[in-house]
Amino acid sequence: MSFVPELEKVLGVSLITDPDITSSYSKDQAPFAPFAPAKAVLLARSTEEVSKALAFCSEHKIPVVTRGAGSGLSGGANADADSLVISLEKMNSIIEIDPANQWAKVQAGVINLDLDTAVKEFGMAYLPDPASRDWSTLGGNVATNAGGMCCVKYGVTSHHVRALKVVLSTGEIIEVGKATKKFVTTLDLMHLFIGSEGTLGIVTEITVNIVPRPKSPATLIATFPNITQAASASTELLKYRPSMLEIIDQTTLKAVEKWHPLGFEVAGSILLMQLDENFELGDAAVATCQSHGMIDGMFTTEASEAADLIRVRKLAYPALERLGATLLDDVALPVTKIAEFVGKVEHLAKKYDLTIGIFGHAGDGNMHPTIVHDHGDVEGEKRAKSAFAEIVGVAQELGGSASGEHGIGSIKRGLVKDEVSQSVIDIQRGIKQLLDPSGILNPGKKLP
Amino acid sequence: MSFVPELEKVLGVSLITDPDITSSYSKDQAPFAPFAPAKAVLLARSTEEVSKALAFCSEHKIPVVTRGAGSGLSGGANADADSLVISLEKMNSIIEIDPANQWAKVQAGVINLDLDTAVKEFGMAYLPDPASRDWSTLGGNVATNAGGMCCVKYGVTSHHVRALKVVLSTGEIIEVGKATKKFVTTLDLMHLFIGSEGTLGIVTEITVNIVPRPKSPATLIATFPNITQAASASTELLKYRPSMLEIIDQTTLKAVEKWHPLGFEVAGSILLMQLDENFELGDAAVATCQSHGMIDGMFTTEASEAADLIRVRKLAYPALERLGATLLDDVALPVTKIAEFVGKVEHLAKKYDLTIGIFGHAGDGNMHPTIVHDHGDVEGEKRAKSAFAEIVGVAQELGGSASGEHGIGSIKRGLVKDEVSQSVIDIQRGIKQLLDPSGILNPGKKLP
Repeated sequence: MSFVPELEKVLGVSLITDPDITSSYSKDQAPFAPFAPAKAVLLARSTEEVSKALAFCSEHKIPVVTRGAGSGLSGGANADADSLVISLEKMNSIIEIDPANQWAKVQAGVINLDLDTAVKEFGMAYLPDPASRDWSTLGGNVATNAGGMCCVKYGVTSHHVRALKVVLSTGEIIEVGKATKKFVTTLDLMHLFIGSEGTLGIVTEITVNIVPRPKSPATLIATFPNITQAASASTELLKYRPSMLEIIDQTTLKAVEKWHPLGFEVAGSILLMQLDENFELGDAAVATCQSHGMIDGMFTTEASEAADLIRVRKLAYPALERLGATLLDDVALPVTKIAEFVGKVEHLAKKYDLTIGIFGHAGDGNMHPTIVHDHGDVEGEKRAKSAFAEIVGVAQELGGSASGEHGIGSIKRGLVKDEVSQSVIDIQRGIKQLLDPSGILNPGKKLP
Repeated sequence: MSFVPELEKVLGVSLITDPDITSSYSKDQAPFAPFAPAKAVLLARSTEEVSKALAFCSEHKIPVVTRGAGSGLSGGANADADSLVISLEKMNSIIEIDPANQWAKVQAGVINLDLDTAVKEFGMAYLPDPASRDWSTLGGNVATNAGGMCCVKYGVTSHHVRALKVVLSTGEIIEVGKATKKFVTTLDLMHLFIGSEGTLGIVTEITVNIVPRPKSPATLIATFPNITQAASASTELLKYRPSMLEIIDQTTLKAVEKWHPLGFEVAGSILLMQLDENFELGDAAVATCQSHGMIDGMFTTEASEAADLIRVRKLAYPALERLGATLLDDVALPVTKIAEFVGKVEHLAKKYDLTIGIFGHAGDGNMHPTIVHDHGDVEGEKRAKSAFAEIVGVAQELGGSASGEHGIGSIKRGLVKDEVSQSVIDIQRGIKQLLDPSGILNPGKKLP
């Protein structure tokens, strides 16, 4: 028996049940993660509506999958046939901007870039900048503890959140953290919810730090004969406190060149760095790159020139996508292990006869190997999946972990056990039991 | 029956039981917080020793109070007569410094400034700078989530911790977080322990961020006719991204003048700001102060001049201490409410016939009203305690909270209930029950 009519009565609104529509609400952007069209989709309009829905679902043991824009890459928002999907996309109001106290309070469905644009009027910025920022929501950013380009200097989403309103699985509404810059009155419950991928509660309102808008950045681009030299230069460039520090490997560069020739055909690797202050360090940064074997380099404070320079980074993933079906991986590494990691992944590319392009946030060690196989090649897809898992293992062996910013979702749940002790697993289970005793919140995701 | 002989056998070391010594290990720096000399003190030498001690204490239901240097100001490390005190002061090794990956790993008993001094050799800094940094330990800083002067720009202790080794009450040893800059493999259990004031586990090893050492700062000092103007200037100065932004009220200035005349007798309030980059903003910052009614101001990039300027801030608390017995309060406020807060506290000073000097971290709203009464004046002491509690109430009314950086400990436990919902209390109790089922860890502290 479907729960739909009864829940519609409780909420006083219609749920979406048309399978053509529920299907698109039942998965994120991860290509191989299992999903089934959910039983129904609620386009929630308020915290109170989410609360009523969760109280109902707890009582009737209905699995609930929460989603924002569905930009995730780990299957974290994928549903199964029994689920209710709660989409927060309509909860997209910026509730308040307080530039003097340097915070903004938003509903969870607000798009990252929309918040940044809104606070720009006050000379402020919301810094965390995941690649998806022009369509991903703050709620999703909080759920995955999203990173981005600026994290090398400014930290990930969790460093920028002050307070959350959360609906617990019972329907209870709680507030954790506080809008003030300091808060130590309670245990830090807020960080439990950040990165919990919808397994502990549904975040409906978020209060974030906003900061005086940094200067328009200066940009350095440097080519190197190989990624070992680029990576060692990158580690040293951290001393200039870059606001961006990205690396691209030769496989990715070749894919870009094939599509949009930008003149990088001789480079074995490229580094892109930005400074948003202390531009006078540009010359020193170029010299640092030279001392690591730089072929060619350029430093500019001109925004238009910079746009040309960083184009290669923006083209990296779409260029690889043009080569075939892609599987975008995401691992966290010690920054000193990037070159070794790339070497091992290149070895895997040979072993599995796949193209694997690697680019990522060199400055914080968060790399994105992207596995390419031919569209429709079932064997290739199998090999790609094997390589995907092995890449995680390589990262773990090098002292890294299974994800940097995309989350564990469903696709990496089986790959984390070597990283996590039984005691930590037990504590996670205890917290899950405490906050979601009926186990309805995003079952099969994140937690072991 | 004393547990001491049996525990000594289990550990193979002697415990301190001399009441003259145990007494000094059984309290922190909070003047009015209750304590009794603990039954025994263990000067722990290793994580394994802490583990064995906790397993024993769990089994025998012996309360355990953990301490570092005892620099706390909330009674958070105060013991009672049944307790075992575990001091981590001998666990003071810097285990590893990895400048390339920008982290350092220390035992919990390492003194904050010793770490900063050690990493300085590599051109790096450990930024969080509580006023006690030359004698407080990293373990204590983590337990209270300590702040400091630089937090206005760089955030509090929790923003600088990457990983922790924690002994649970059962003796189990866990690791939470990771040395890499990004880590999302598990729920964020690490932040649960930061600021938990010894109630959830004993942190024995800490991996922290270290960063390229900032430039020697430039300093602005500005006097204002009254604190309302100083506070409004302060809020606007945040746009220059100061690395320090402190305010001092007239009562405190008068106490300083009486002791060390520095020429501030006409000022109603003083602001001290430092920039650790973009020194070219100094003139604009002075202009900002002028537009808020500055009497006199000076901006300098000379370190020796700056030392003279910031002397007034360093003298603030000792100057008030010279006036009598002091009770140092600590509240978190929205930065825009500082002036209103000071007005209300001045009113309380009159009502209770007490001197209350106010200084603090204007940039992040963390204020330290310091209540003075005559030594030995029992009535005055009573009035001071009442004022202390009322000050917290004033902060809460203005949207702030009971502590900014000193913690709740025992002295503020009764003052937080208006700030915290029953649901949050219940979750905190659930987590306490999960992690410390026998309730031996720092009973009567922090948690409601």
